[in-house]
Amino acid sequence: LDARAMQEAEARQAQLTKPAGALGVLEETSVRLCGIQRTCPPRPLAKPVVAVFAADHGVHARGVTPWPQEVTASMIENFRAGGAAVNVLARQVGAEVYVVDMGVNADVAADDRVLDRKIRRGTSDLAAGPAMTRDEAAAGVFLGADVAQQLVAAGHDCLLTGDMGIANTTASAALIAALTGAEAADVTGRGTGIDDPTHAHKISIVKVVLERRPASEDPLETLASVGGFEHAGLVGFVLAAAAMGVPVVLDGLIAGAAALVVQAIAPGALDYCFAGHRSAEPGHRVALQHLGLRPLVDLDLRLGEGTGATLAFPLVEAAGATLREMATFDAAGVARK
Amino acid sequence: LDARAMQEAEARQAQLTKPAGALGVLEETSVRLCGIQRTCPPRPLAKPVVAVFAADHGVHARGVTPWPQEVTASMIENFRAGGAAVNVLARQVGAEVYVVDMGVNADVAADDRVLDRKIRRGTSDLAAGPAMTRDEAAAGVFLGADVAQQLVAAGHDCLLTGDMGIANTTASAALIAALTGAEAADVTGRGTGIDDPTHAHKISIVKVVLERRPASEDPLETLASVGGFEHAGLVGFVLAAAAMGVPVVLDGLIAGAAALVVQAIAPGALDYCFAGHRSAEPGHRVALQHLGLRPLVDLDLRLGEGTGATLAFPLVEAAGATLREMATFDAAGVARK
Repeated sequence: LDARAMQEAEARQAQLTKPAGALGVLEETSVRLCGIQRTCPPRPLAKPVVAVFAADHGVHARGVTPWPQEVTASMIENFRAGGAAVNVLARQVGAEVYVVDMGVNADVAADDRVLDRKIRRGTSDLAAGPAMTRDEAAAGVFLGADVAQQLVAAGHDCLLTGDMGIANTTASAALIAALTGAEAADVTGRGTGIDDPTHAHKISIVKVVLERRPASEDPLETLASVGGFEHAGLVGFVLAAAAMGVPVVLDGLIAGAAALVVQAIAPGALDYCFAGHRSAEPGHRVALQHLGLRPLVDLDLRLGEGTGATLAFPLVEAAGATLREMATFDAAGVARK
Repeated sequence: LDARAMQEAEARQAQLTKPAGALGVLEETSVRLCGIQRTCPPRPLAKPVVAVFAADHGVHARGVTPWPQEVTASMIENFRAGGAAVNVLARQVGAEVYVVDMGVNADVAADDRVLDRKIRRGTSDLAAGPAMTRDEAAAGVFLGADVAQQLVAAGHDCLLTGDMGIANTTASAALIAALTGAEAADVTGRGTGIDDPTHAHKISIVKVVLERRPASEDPLETLASVGGFEHAGLVGFVLAAAAMGVPVVLDGLIAGAAALVVQAIAPGALDYCFAGHRSAEPGHRVALQHLGLRPLVDLDLRLGEGTGATLAFPLVEAAGATLREMATFDAAGVARK
């Protein structure tokens, strides 16, 4: 981040017509936006985009969710048609929506909004062995980075993360436990709203994964062992955004799990990330604490797709707008205390 | 609220392409919006407006804040010029901003955006006696209701509350304590960010007010005794909005204090209110608990003006949009669990 732009932003916040600190979290947000863009006041975030990283998971066969795996592919058609929640919320804030097929277990037609980056038709069952090879994980990171570069080249100035994949909360829980040291029971939630027996079974599967996994300090190895193709893509997406100096708004649990991998690889990249929201999933709370990020929206969402990031985007933009547009005490002729 | 529209909304939320309940607080918000508008799906909130109720307070002379009283009038000029935080945030969400002079201790020029509804040039010192007469309080309520009617007649379909008035957090703390039974120390915050000695002094003033005030079960009497002219205006504004079936987004501490008066007069009117945010002021937390409202934004703001309500408005509108625009499982051909 650019320290000089951030100092300018802090000094400017102190001159705006409001008590010092009265805009709360928006002030820190505005300062960091200046650091990311390397200028104060920050430029408007005029062309936001949501990238929905989609993939399937071999662990689905273990019965961790009652939803059929085919729903991943049908939801991609729903995204394409503009009928999913993230489409609705993105239209509200003027964001475009792209889907990135990282490894859906179905034939997905590619077009200008649905990008074919398929590594394989679903990961292997991570309760039985590594979800993917190390090469596949690395390929996923590169593919995700390439998507970020393509979107920024197309003029997008704020990247919002999204995700879709039946059983992806199981892989996310495993990743979060592996990277934070938390217990399976503390990070494994009800996902789509599973009942008590399925929840208990899901926790037992995550325990099996954590016992099966060889100890490793290598984040790419951990990603390959217990993650998903969409996590790999998201890791590259965030790393590339940071490298290009473009702000990222993270969505919920799946993004939080991927961000922990980013933190382990290059912690400075998190400076470019805003936590869009805190989901109802217990693992997301653990992830955000470990990441040191405060969520902007906290409304018990647990939908994924990028819905939390999209709802939060106007708050990030509003923070920047205060620095650009608010009057100073001197200009407005308002007395100070 | 219209029970049938709410039942339709609940049934429709269950058919949308997402797990049941996955949109968290937005689902309840969307259902209540249907109940308020008496139709499902809800109409877009296309013409929001912020009404900034401004007034001065005789208790200012007690030294509860280091800011000079003249700042109330200068901030009105800042609102008029479009340079205050609420102006910036309102532009972001397409809301208009009106200022209502309920009792500023200065000559304020009226125009089409600054409405002259002045009752008196500031309340009397509420630590010494009643802040206003019962007739003045009633007049304030009627004037606030009239503002709401005028704005709705002009086509505004969502009313956001705002406020401005140096020392208004002292009167708000007194109102909240009087209406909830909370202790002065638990509802009296640092307002603009006062230092420890001023904070201790402010708490002692609120204690004096509570001891001075005759016990009364009459909310209008309580409002007159320890409130401000802007609180009176806000009470009428909310009551009239509810009567007209128009949703209200409440701002922070000052709106919360006024909403407690509304609750005591006509609790059903709160059904038409969404709590825009939770401010950093401790009294606001107490007020929201007593009101039974969950805030949509929780970012440590403590600025007033309507900034919290304005930031929250897109979340209310987003909730409605999901009901209007999301595909159903059947229409999208997505399998259910």
